[in-house]
Amino acid sequence: MPKKGEVRIKVAYSGICGTDVHIYHGMMDKRVSIPQTIGHEMSGVIDAMGEEVEGFQVGDKVVVRPLDDRLVQPSDKGFNHICEKLKFIGIDSPGSMQQYWNIPAFVLHKLKPETDLKLAALIEPLSVAVHDVRMSGLEAGETAVVLGGGPIGLLVAMVAKEAGAKVIISEVNETRIKMAADFGLQAVNPTKTDLVQYVREETEGRLADVVFEVAGVQPALDVMTEVAGIRGRIVMVAIHGQKKPVDLFKFFWKELKLIGARVYEKEDYEKAITLVTANELPFGKMITDVQPLSKIQEVFESIDKNPEGLKVLMDCQL
Amino acid sequence: MPKKGEVRIKVAYSGICGTDVHIYHGMMDKRVSIPQTIGHEMSGVIDAMGEEVEGFQVGDKVVVRPLDDRLVQPSDKGFNHICEKLKFIGIDSPGSMQQYWNIPAFVLHKLKPETDLKLAALIEPLSVAVHDVRMSGLEAGETAVVLGGGPIGLLVAMVAKEAGAKVIISEVNETRIKMAADFGLQAVNPTKTDLVQYVREETEGRLADVVFEVAGVQPALDVMTEVAGIRGRIVMVAIHGQKKPVDLFKFFWKELKLIGARVYEKEDYEKAITLVTANELPFGKMITDVQPLSKIQEVFESIDKNPEGLKVLMDCQL
Repeated sequence: MPKKGEVRIKVAYSGICGTDVHIYHGMMDKRVSIPQTIGHEMSGVIDAMGEEVEGFQVGDKVVVRPLDDRLVQPSDKGFNHICEKLKFIGIDSPGSMQQYWNIPAFVLHKLKPETDLKLAALIEPLSVAVHDVRMSGLEAGETAVVLGGGPIGLLVAMVAKEAGAKVIISEVNETRIKMAADFGLQAVNPTKTDLVQYVREETEGRLADVVFEVAGVQPALDVMTEVAGIRGRIVMVAIHGQKKPVDLFKFFWKELKLIGARVYEKEDYEKAITLVTANELPFGKMITDVQPLSKIQEVFESIDKNPEGLKVLMDCQL
Repeated sequence: MPKKGEVRIKVAYSGICGTDVHIYHGMMDKRVSIPQTIGHEMSGVIDAMGEEVEGFQVGDKVVVRPLDDRLVQPSDKGFNHICEKLKFIGIDSPGSMQQYWNIPAFVLHKLKPETDLKLAALIEPLSVAVHDVRMSGLEAGETAVVLGGGPIGLLVAMVAKEAGAKVIISEVNETRIKMAADFGLQAVNPTKTDLVQYVREETEGRLADVVFEVAGVQPALDVMTEVAGIRGRIVMVAIHGQKKPVDLFKFFWKELKLIGARVYEKEDYEKAITLVTANELPFGKMITDVQPLSKIQEVFESIDKNPEGLKVLMDCQL
């Protein structure tokens, strides 16, 4: 049974994140030891209540914001979501790829009863995108260029478009370019089209007001400072494990801003929940496969062979 | 006589900027052809008026904001001071290192009659510092680390301190460290003291809220992402002629911002004029030498041999 302040969740779906694949490949072995149940993109239903949990009841549909900030310090300046001693639930402590999950109630967000639990498993990655767009200060009428058309890039593009921006995705994979078009998004292949020239023409020379670097590769770093217009804001979403060459002169010359953005805050989750509940964006198309949790090993083995797949959900009750 | 819309200035003093030294060394030969009168840090008195100049009269003490933005375009989004076709007066057109200087009136700022014209020659570089601090969003009570204690670094430190921040300068030259102390500023030598540890102790672990990168060297780029605390803002003041390795992971992890800052806007000049008029900061100590304009060749020849000199003014009437 759940402890004081905790609930037990009957996990419905758990999505596989790029980070989970990194863990599977052993790239995070310093942080994650075997055995560890991973998973942090999930939806579920409260199944049992511990003592002293208020505001929730058995049967509530919920998602978890997997940030355990209980070790926050004054030097974190109130930025709990990225506090120095943050524990990420599903990496640093057991995650959602299990049938039943005990979790402290302070990480829960309640969903409306009619919410589709498959789509709800997208709320965590969608919150990343909502956070990225919020951090950029994107305004309606501005032009955003998204470098990289994978799951997070597509979600960022959707959220930016929903905010009233003109959005151009840069993506080298032709299948993903077609997917973006299917999502109603504009995508170009920078190996075939001069991206800077393309954006210049699309914006009457203003270039991008906001650039989202989601690709994590050097050509994206090279183009980000070119495709941004005067006072452009570049949001660093990708994780670059090593120091990389950056054109700092362009930051000076055009007074560009580079904005680091990591995970999400409470308000980003609330916005993502609103978007999923409204279901007016093509979230359903993001889910390219649903597999029973019992097949988790096969799924991880096959995921690298299918770079065109977007989001795979594990059905945690099968 | 000055043309329509212009005034003639009897130049009092013209300071030598690092950019002027670069031009002298031939490093900007692509942009500056011989013969060209350079100089853009100046003070003077209006000596003659062209037609259709309003708001000024002969005898007014003035400084020039040397930004010719007449070729501004809509794609510059109203950021005239860094517009794509900006001409920098004193680099792209004749500058202030002459006795009399004809200049369009729209670049003038009027000074009060009691203003010291030597100090007034510092208004241009001081405006750079004011702009840098304004772009950083520095608030009273925050901690700012200034990487590099040359003329601009010292001015940035003074302006940041005046704004109510705790300021720590990082500088490798011991003479400049002593100068900083003489200016009432706190400076440490990062080759002798662990800068990050020092700032950590001085801030109860918060680290720097704002970092000004004024040094232009790789060790400064390496330390800037270390010494900045959570959501720290790093202002890129230095000019990096080549792409340099940057720890983008730290931008992501701590949600840092990199803010490019170039020249100044009208309000920065007005603030700098207010500061020089009040004369409560140690501006006088910035001026380490005043030489007659007739000795300009010797001054440029000697300036590299005196790295401890801060600001050399040319007296343009001698």
